[in-house]
Amino acid sequence: LSDSTKVQVEHPNLVNTFNDVVKMREAVKKSGRFQAAFLAKQAHIDSVLTQPINVPVPKDAGGGYTHEVHKNNYRLMFDAGTLFQITQDPKYANFVKSVLLEYAKLYPTLGAHPEVKSSNPGQLFWQGLNEAVWLVHTIQAYDAVVSHLSKADRKTIEKGVLEPVALFLSEQSPQTFNKVHNHGTWATCAVGMTGYVLDKPEWVEKALYGLDKSGTGGFMRQLDELFSPNGYYNEGPYYQRYALMPFVTFAKAIENNQPERKIFEYRDNVLLKAINTTAQLSYNGLFFPINDAIKSKGIDTIELVNGIAIAYGITSETGLLDIAKQQNRVLLTGDGLKVANALDKGLQTDYQFKTQAFGDGATGDNGAFVVLRSDSSKNASVATVKATSQGLGHGHFDKLGLSYYDQGTEILTDYGAARFLNVVAKFGGRYLPENDSYAQQSIAHNTLIADETSHFNGVTKVGNQHHPKVDLFANTDQVKLVSASIDTAYQGIQLARTTALVSIPDENIDWVIDVFNAQSSTPHQYDLAFHYDGHFIESNFKYQAHTEQLKPLGTANGYQHLWLTASAQTEQSQAISQLTWLNDNGRFYTLSTVNDNNLNVLFARAGANDPNFNLREDKAFVLRVKDQAQHQFVSLLEAHGEYNPAKEYTLKSKTSIQNLSFERKDGVSLIIVELNDGRQYLIAYQQQNKQAQTFDFDGKTYKLKEAVNLFTLTKK
Amino acid sequence: LSDSTKVQVEHPNLVNTFNDVVKMREAVKKSGRFQAAFLAKQAHIDSVLTQPINVPVPKDAGGGYTHEVHKNNYRLMFDAGTLFQITQDPKYANFVKSVLLEYAKLYPTLGAHPEVKSSNPGQLFWQGLNEAVWLVHTIQAYDAVVSHLSKADRKTIEKGVLEPVALFLSEQSPQTFNKVHNHGTWATCAVGMTGYVLDKPEWVEKALYGLDKSGTGGFMRQLDELFSPNGYYNEGPYYQRYALMPFVTFAKAIENNQPERKIFEYRDNVLLKAINTTAQLSYNGLFFPINDAIKSKGIDTIELVNGIAIAYGITSETGLLDIAKQQNRVLLTGDGLKVANALDKGLQTDYQFKTQAFGDGATGDNGAFVVLRSDSSKNASVATVKATSQGLGHGHFDKLGLSYYDQGTEILTDYGAARFLNVVAKFGGRYLPENDSYAQQSIAHNTLIADETSHFNGVTKVGNQHHPKVDLFANTDQVKLVSASIDTAYQGIQLARTTALVSIPDENIDWVIDVFNAQSSTPHQYDLAFHYDGHFIESNFKYQAHTEQLKPLGTANGYQHLWLTASAQTEQSQAISQLTWLNDNGRFYTLSTVNDNNLNVLFARAGANDPNFNLREDKAFVLRVKDQAQHQFVSLLEAHGEYNPAKEYTLKSKTSIQNLSFERKDGVSLIIVELNDGRQYLIAYQQQNKQAQTFDFDGKTYKLKEAVNLFTLTKK
Ligand SMILES: [Zn+2]
Ligand SMILES: [Zn+2]
Repeated sequence: LSDSTKVQVEHPNLVNTFNDVVKMREAVKKSGRFQAAFLAKQAHIDSVLTQPINVPVPKDAGGGYTHEVHKNNYRLMFDAGTLFQITQDPKYANFVKSVLLEYAKLYPTLGAHPEVKSSNPGQLFWQGLNEAVWLVHTIQAYDAVVSHLSKADRKTIEKGVLEPVALFLSEQSPQTFNKVHNHGTWATCAVGMTGYVLDKPEWVEKALYGLDKSGTGGFMRQLDELFSPNGYYNEGPYYQRYALMPFVTFAKAIENNQPERKIFEYRDNVLLKAINTTAQLSYNGLFFPINDAIKSKGIDTIELVNGIAIAYGITSETGLLDIAKQQNRVLLTGDGLKVANALDKGLQTDYQFKTQAFGDGATGDNGAFVVLRSDSSKNASVATVKATSQGLGHGHFDKLGLSYYDQGTEILTDYGAARFLNVVAKFGGRYLPENDSYAQQSIAHNTLIADETSHFNGVTKVGNQHHPKVDLFANTDQVKLVSASIDTAYQGIQLARTTALVSIPDENIDWVIDVFNAQSSTPHQYDLAFHYDGHFIESNFKYQAHTEQLKPLGTANGYQHLWLTASAQTEQSQAISQLTWLNDNGRFYTLSTVNDNNLNVLFARAGANDPNFNLREDKAFVLRVKDQAQHQFVSLLEAHGEYNPAKEYTLKSKTSIQNLSFERKDGVSLIIVELNDGRQYLIAYQQQNKQAQTFDFDGKTYKLKEAVNLFTLTKK
Repeated sequence: LSDSTKVQVEHPNLVNTFNDVVKMREAVKKSGRFQAAFLAKQAHIDSVLTQPINVPVPKDAGGGYTHEVHKNNYRLMFDAGTLFQITQDPKYANFVKSVLLEYAKLYPTLGAHPEVKSSNPGQLFWQGLNEAVWLVHTIQAYDAVVSHLSKADRKTIEKGVLEPVALFLSEQSPQTFNKVHNHGTWATCAVGMTGYVLDKPEWVEKALYGLDKSGTGGFMRQLDELFSPNGYYNEGPYYQRYALMPFVTFAKAIENNQPERKIFEYRDNVLLKAINTTAQLSYNGLFFPINDAIKSKGIDTIELVNGIAIAYGITSETGLLDIAKQQNRVLLTGDGLKVANALDKGLQTDYQFKTQAFGDGATGDNGAFVVLRSDSSKNASVATVKATSQGLGHGHFDKLGLSYYDQGTEILTDYGAARFLNVVAKFGGRYLPENDSYAQQSIAHNTLIADETSHFNGVTKVGNQHHPKVDLFANTDQVKLVSASIDTAYQGIQLARTTALVSIPDENIDWVIDVFNAQSSTPHQYDLAFHYDGHFIESNFKYQAHTEQLKPLGTANGYQHLWLTASAQTEQSQAISQLTWLNDNGRFYTLSTVNDNNLNVLFARAGANDPNFNLREDKAFVLRVKDQAQHQFVSLLEAHGEYNPAKEYTLKSKTSIQNLSFERKDGVSLIIVELNDGRQYLIAYQQQNKQAQTFDFDGKTYKLKEAVNLFTLTKK
């Protein structure tokens, strides 16, 4: 018994320690979230363990039969390992053992997977990435059951499969292992954790500092480069939550094995910041869907469940429990137990969502993803401006792209990725051809497009070399504002966007003010697109709806995928053009835009040149000026009223915006807003954060005390 | 004091009695649902009572300023009356008094409303209907506060406004008052309740039996004719819940004043059946949107809140509490208190939704609205077949129309009404022109259309004269089935539809089987439309998507409003054509249809010839055969699999239907279904419910024990 105890003190010691296990064994005896999660997991696994063990010869690519079976095997082993730790019932350990003995037989017979395509090949799987994920789970399962195994079985398993997979992922895949890239993180996590379990400190060193241990590759270098100082991941939140998993898993194992490395404090707590930033980059539970993002992915993703649990384990911040409560998934880990106990006690406090510019790049100065929030609640109004770098191959060509969310719903929309994950009939479940031809293109976004071509001509390599500059970021009580600019998206054209979120609940004001300037020395066509979700209600100008026939909006760069449903030459006698729509959230939205340079308004809907009906039929307005060297689109989006057919009332379906204009005075930019009821407002901002600048407007002198100020005008 | 007590015993005595009031006064002292509702109402009304009283001269039509003010006034008086009863705070009674004194001044000065348009004119409002609703509320408010008023004020109010409005609605509007129609119900309810309060038994008699008291008009006649024996209302559930309000309100007042009339027992409890049927005609909280229905209207509508409370007050059926709990609205009435107390105690039990044919018409034999449910839960799979009569002016031309619901979502959709209720920019918030030109037309529905013309040529008057016949209705454990037919929708064409819902949870079977037969002596084009909500995934045949240009599907009868997005001549070498889509509920749906008579499949989307963007862009498949005297569409809709991109898995995105065929054998109709995994099923039904019919199939003899039986075939 003392020998068994000794072994158990050493194992497990990755994400869970023996001390965690002791607490979990107690916890499952008491009713509460943790016990419920344990019983559910046990019931599920018990029903599965009756099925025969299946370790097939690798054959299929992602989504195919053998691929799914091997994925399923590591999940089952992982869960069975956990259950063995908690219950000490040998049937779970024996299951892991039996599966691993099969793998120990199979693995030595394998060469490159028959479906290998990527630069990161695997043996069990078509991609080395999957192989690394397999080992991350499997080594934890092994760690959980090793105390129960005979010496002979241990040797068979370690020599037959665990060591060979670790060696395959490291020594035999140096290009991936040393790469400062998410695939490298999975590989170093897998190999490093295997090093801890099999007592190979050398493997841990290589995992941390690269195969040559120089630090030019490896986990620490990845930590240095893949997150910005405030924890933003270059590819955006959808990939950030995925990237997070191996980081927090390996870090937790490092912390448990070598606390002296203070891994969670490294780089000013960058890992904790990355976890927190992942939660910040969400709205009403879903991640901001920039770049190649599946739009239904949100904070309840298992990766962030792990992240939040680990972060809570370290910080005990009760705001994290709010996220954990929404996640509604209890982990059977030591940290999962802490979270479950805290939620059982109702310790959660509201998570504070913040107005923040998330600097991009290793040093945080490659532009930023800017989130403007009306308040800290999860259903506040939010505008985001994508002034980030390209985000590699999954990046979209939407420099200075705007999104807007209100009352829990996406209002100005981002298409996200064109993909039906794992739906075989839809291009094998992979990214669809329309992801390239539409979803990544500039016109699929709420940004400015010159001459019907995408930013950087749609070339990722060029995009990767440039990024916008954040010129101004201001977070005041009533106005949150960002100005950003880029002069490399198009040769010879400078783009600058200023977006302000203005929220004054007492005065029923919910505005997004948007000033998009394009400046060149030669004439261009400038399109500013606003993609929206809702039903068109009305405009204050005449338009020609294309009622008898529809044609595409253009021929290339995504334009070929939009049907032109109506077009209008706005009335130049009117100061502003207005478009109103109704979102399913029951609120009306009116986009008012200053009329000048013969503004045209085009109504469009996705779905053209889409022979397999791969695209959603999302709608957009495209504001267009032609043959202009310079044009500034000045717009205000107002959220107003309520449509409640269930209770049979409709409030304020008409916009309250009467007029809108822009002026520059004494180096200060002024947006003047007039309302139907006579109220007038002035939003003034200056590009440099000078002190107490003064300016004259309409015969009065005003003083700008912050970067941006809102003034209520009194009529003369 | 004794005098005041005496008055209070007499008043109130409409929906609430003095006994109810005593209980409510106690209830608001204790925490619970009722107290919470009371405090919320009081806070709201207190904030409103500070505003000046406003009783403007009538000027505007529905939705206009004076219209809304007068509506608001009766609501405020009603609520203030209730609050006076509960709190005994004279400020509430004084408010009602002050408003009524203004009305007593105004009303005698009025003639016909300046915007009068309908055959049911008003004075305060453009429609007499609104005037009746005003009095229904106002007389209850008066009843609540009359004990607080001086004799002089009572006289001023009664002579100045209450009696004149009642006389206007009765003696001066005989055409409406005597009409067996919902407008008549409101009028008789208003006048009858006024009779009780002002102690004019003669008015009550006229309300109950018509102006001449003969019984040819009046409330009792309406009760006889407007509901079918099982409580179905001719215009469908959307109007049923509206019609319900004056019925249950007046009936409750009759019960309190003259219990000897046993009004709720009248006609075999038809009013309780009507309340219950209104709840039955819903799915996941929303009413089946047949005819002119606003689709977001559901069981939480105030009319059904009243109905359920009154029904619970009478029956104490705990299933009604389940509906009440979902309604989440507590009424400040005696019955509302009973419901609130019961919910506070958690007495609710699951409401039992039923598979039922709701017979239409006063005698219940003018066809039926048939609801097939896989089980009694609110999220069960449900198929409905509309074999009802026309439903008057709000009726749609969708004889034998099919709808299908699954996992909480509408799958085969009904457009509902084309209307944005009260949204001024959308045709004044009234029914849109596209309601006639599209939403009411046959092609906007899941039914059969001959020669691109609507049923009854789209003429309501003709439609009102005919109805389908229900030939067979069967409710067995695994199969729920209806057969119905009509030979008057088109001259010389007999239409017959058999729809079966097959649900076998243990075998993962969720099917709608649909056999639609059209029979004529001359050739026709037959279209069978399936409108669906979701994203198209794949077909098992080639189609030509119209990628570069879209044109309307046709030129008239609703066809002009559909864009033709793709077309296909199915492969005659294949036995069945299959179309798969993915609904937002995460489930896949595959429609399999037997290929014969050169079946064409057209893909369509609403929105053509819609110059003001009034239509939603709903999608449909249209199955078409040309130049056929007879054709039978044999289809099976399978619900299968799960798309869960948030958790990154996709299950069974492919249909399991391998083959489908139809045969007639020995007077029995047979549908043979083959699955990919080798399972085979036979669904057999006979039009007459004979006993134990036998038939031979594939060399075996089967015995049909019920009207429909499902047989699992064993392979030879
Ligand atoms: Zn995008
Ligand atoms: Zn309809």
